[in-house]
Amino acid sequence: MHTAPTSAMTLPTYNDVLAAHERIGPYIHRTPVLTSTFMNERTGADLYFKCENFQKAGAFKARGAVNAVFSLPEAAAAKGVATHSSGNHALSLCYAAARRGIPARVVMPATAPSAKKAAVLSYGGQIVECAPSMAAREAAAARIIDETDADLVHPYDDPRVIAGQATAARELAEDIADLDAFIAPISGGGLISGCCLALSALSPMTAIYAAEPDNAADAHESLKVGRIVRKEAGETVADGLKACLSERTWHFVSRHVADILTVTEAEIIEAMRLVWGRMKIVIEPSSAVPVAALLKNPSIFAGKRVGILISGGNVDLDRLPWQ
Amino acid sequence: MHTAPTSAMTLPTYNDVLAAHERIGPYIHRTPVLTSTFMNERTGADLYFKCENFQKAGAFKARGAVNAVFSLPEAAAAKGVATHSSGNHALSLCYAAARRGIPARVVMPATAPSAKKAAVLSYGGQIVECAPSMAAREAAAARIIDETDADLVHPYDDPRVIAGQATAARELAEDIADLDAFIAPISGGGLISGCCLALSALSPMTAIYAAEPDNAADAHESLKVGRIVRKEAGETVADGLKACLSERTWHFVSRHVADILTVTEAEIIEAMRLVWGRMKIVIEPSSAVPVAALLKNPSIFAGKRVGILISGGNVDLDRLPWQ
Repeated sequence: MHTAPTSAMTLPTYNDVLAAHERIGPYIHRTPVLTSTFMNERTGADLYFKCENFQKAGAFKARGAVNAVFSLPEAAAAKGVATHSSGNHALSLCYAAARRGIPARVVMPATAPSAKKAAVLSYGGQIVECAPSMAAREAAAARIIDETDADLVHPYDDPRVIAGQATAARELAEDIADLDAFIAPISGGGLISGCCLALSALSPMTAIYAAEPDNAADAHESLKVGRIVRKEAGETVADGLKACLSERTWHFVSRHVADILTVTEAEIIEAMRLVWGRMKIVIEPSSAVPVAALLKNPSIFAGKRVGILISGGNVDLDRLPWQ
Repeated sequence: MHTAPTSAMTLPTYNDVLAAHERIGPYIHRTPVLTSTFMNERTGADLYFKCENFQKAGAFKARGAVNAVFSLPEAAAAKGVATHSSGNHALSLCYAAARRGIPARVVMPATAPSAKKAAVLSYGGQIVECAPSMAAREAAAARIIDETDADLVHPYDDPRVIAGQATAARELAEDIADLDAFIAPISGGGLISGCCLALSALSPMTAIYAAEPDNAADAHESLKVGRIVRKEAGETVADGLKACLSERTWHFVSRHVADILTVTEAEIIEAMRLVWGRMKIVIEPSSAVPVAALLKNPSIFAGKRVGILISGGNVDLDRLPWQ
C-alpha cells in the first residue's frame, strides 16, 4: 500500500525521460554494455554491465546534470547553477554548465582534498569555500542563491535530475532485451528512481534491485519498515552512497524496488578488485556495491539475465582501498 | 636496401593472416576501439585505441597462441604445447590449449612470483619448475620437448604467432578507415610484424611506428644502425618489452617501420596513470609505452588520425608503479 504523492511534489514522467534523452544526447556518451565470461562463471548469471564509468565526467551523474542545465530557460540559465555537493554531481554540473557556457558554483569545505578542488576547476567550475560542516555548506549555498539567483541543482531530489539518470536504464533496455533483473547502487535514490521509471515503462517484467553498504543501509531499512528512515551513515569506502532518500525518490523505491541488498566493506573491496583485475575497467567503490551483491546472492540471480549499472569510475589512484 | 630472406626462414603471408582470423574467431574477442576527447586534446591527434587489454587472457597474445595451437594437426596437438616464457604469452598458450583440450606446459623459475604461478594454473597450464636462469629454462624446455614431443611455441619468432597477432591490426583497419599513423609497443617484434603485414596490405598509406622504453631500446638502435642489435635490457616497469628482435621479425620491422620512439620510465608511468584516470581502463605498463610516445611527439602525430594498439591489461594491482 502506498500513500498518494503530495501535491507539492513534482514527479518526472516517462515523457520527461524521452525529452531528457533527446536534450542531453549531444553532450553525453551512449555508454557500452560489457559482458564478462569470468564474471558470468563466478555468479552463474548472464551479466550485462552498463558502463557509466565511461560517461562524461566519469559517472552517470552527467546525465541528470546536463538535463537540469539544458532545461533552464535562457534568462534563468544566464544566472548560472550551484551545488553544495562536491562529488561526481559537482563535476557533472560543472561539465554541463561549461557546455552551455554558464557559471557553475560549487560550495566546498576549505578542508576538502586538493584533488577534489582541482577536479572541479578542471571542469570549469568556481569553488566557494566554507567551514567544514553541513550547516555551513547549506548557508554558503543559500547566500550564493541570494546573491546570484543561480539555480540550485540538487544531486537527486529534482525531477530533471531523475529524468536524466533514467536515460541510462533506457539505453540498457534498448540494447539488452528481456532482462530478468536489474541492480544499481542506491544513495539518495535519484539513479534508482530514474531506472524504475524507465524500466517499468520499457521492461516491466524486470525485477529491480538496489544495493548499498551495510555501513549506510538506511534505504534497506526504509524498505523494510515501509517509510523513509533517516540516519547518519557510518564510514564506507563507497563514500558516494551516504545520502538518504527523499519523499520524491521514496515514491519510486517503495513502488518498484524488489529488495535492497547490503554488503560489507570487505565484499565491496573484493568485488572492485575483481572487476579491475578481470574486466580491466576502472570502477569506483560505489559501482562495486551491486557487483558484490550479485556475488553474495546467487540464490536470487543465478540462471538469470541481469543488468548491472556501473555508476562511475572516479577513483583516487593514489589511495586504492585494498592497499 | 634489404637483404633477401634466407631460405630457411618461413615468413607469414597475408593469406596466413586471413586463415588465422577465421581459425581463431571462435576463441577470441573482437575487441573494441575506444576514443577519448581528453586524450585527443592532450595530443592534438584523433586517437583510436584498439583495446587488447579486453582480449581473452588479458592481452593480444591470445591471438597468436590460439592460432598456433589450432594450426596443429590432430596427432601433433595431442602431444601438447610448451613454452619457457612466463608472461602474457604463457597465459595465452594455456588458454588456447585448454580450448583445444590439450596440455600446456610452462617452464618457470621456482622463484617466480606466486601470483604468476597462480595465473598459469588458473588458465589450466602445468608448471615445470627450473633454476632461475635463462640456460636452465631453455634446458628444461628442451627436456620437455624430448620427453613429450610437445610443440614449443615461441612467443614471437613463429610465423603462426605473427599471423595471429596480425589480426588485431586487421580488425582496427576494418573498423577505422584512413589512419595516417599507427603505433604499437615493440619487444621481440611479433606484434609489430603482424601489424606491418596486415596494415601494408589493408592500409598502405598508414605510417607504422613502434615504441619502446629507453631502458630496453635495442629495437630503436637496430633500426638506427640497420641491423639487429642484441643487448641485455635494463630494468623497466614495462617488463614485457625486454626481448630482442629475431631475423624473422627484423624482416618486417626493417621494411615497414617508419621510426621506433623511446620513452623514459617516468613518461611510461605518467601515461599509464593518465589512461587509467581519464579513460577508466586498466592497461599494463607495456601498453602505456606507445601512449607516452604519442604525448612526447606532437610534431609527428598532431592533426593526424592515429591508431594505438593497447597490448594488454595484466597488472599486479598490489604494486602499481606510481606508488
